Amino acid sequence: MLNNWHTMIKSKQVDQVSTLLADNVTLFSPVIHTPIQGKKMVSMYLTAAFHTFLNGTFNYHREFSGDNSAVLEFSLNIQGIEINGIDMITWNDENKITEFKVMIRPYKALNMINDQMTAMLATLQQQAVK
Amino acid sequence: MLNNWHTMIKSKQVDQVSTLLADNVTLFSPVIHTPIQGKKMVSMYLTAAFHTFLNGTFNYHREFSGDNSAVLEFSLNIQGIEINGIDMITWNDENKITEFKVMIRPYKALNMINDQMTAMLATLQQQAVK
Repeated sequence: MLNNWHTMIKSKQVDQVSTLLADNVTLFSPVIHTPIQGKKMVSMYLTAAFHTFLNGTFNYHREFSGDNSAVLEFSLNIQGIEINGIDMITWNDENKITEFKVMIRPYKALNMINDQMTAMLATLQQQAVK
Repeated sequence: MLNNWHTMIKSKQVDQVSTLLADNVTLFSPVIHTPIQGKKMVSMYLTAAFHTFLNGTFNYHREFSGDNSAVLEFSLNIQGIEINGIDMITWNDENKITEFKVMIRPYKALNMINDQMTAMLATLQQQAVK
């Protein structure tokens, strides 16, 4: 699973993301308590995240292993704000992602990401309506 | 290292925390970008964190392994707010913690923790001055 994930991130073929997700995938955002459910909604959220995060400064620099799961630590910089966070990814025996959880620090970075993601999701939703 | 950490948390003998820290330990808070340096300052910060977090609802429920390091996921509840986060702990060959990083989600929980920690650190600093 992780190889597929890293290959997608490096190739920036992020429109492939839904092929990596289980139908019943759940996403836990760093901002909102209520989880985001299902392949369609999670794909849209992750696509918005890729547009926001993969700005040329993003990199994964540490990895931790669990059972069918991993924590990937990342850092990036947006408009001079240093952002540090983790993706906590869980997958099933078919190698499809069942849970994706994101946490971000520090406070200023979470605010920045919240603003950028809100704007990006609004853009994607407008495109979907057209 | 992790066994010592879990034993301390379970026994609530959190005044022992400095014995688990390397002299040059660095703490990365979920709120502030600038790291907190050195055993004395990090001990004070972690003591405040224990007073804030270990309220009877705190528990570690997932663990991820790295090289001389681990990610421990935790959850707790303060005044009805559900708080989810990680401790990312790194230690040296002498089994002393060299880096301690905390991330918290969602937004509302980070606000809650920030308020509580600010109040607790003020109390501890007043006690230290007396």
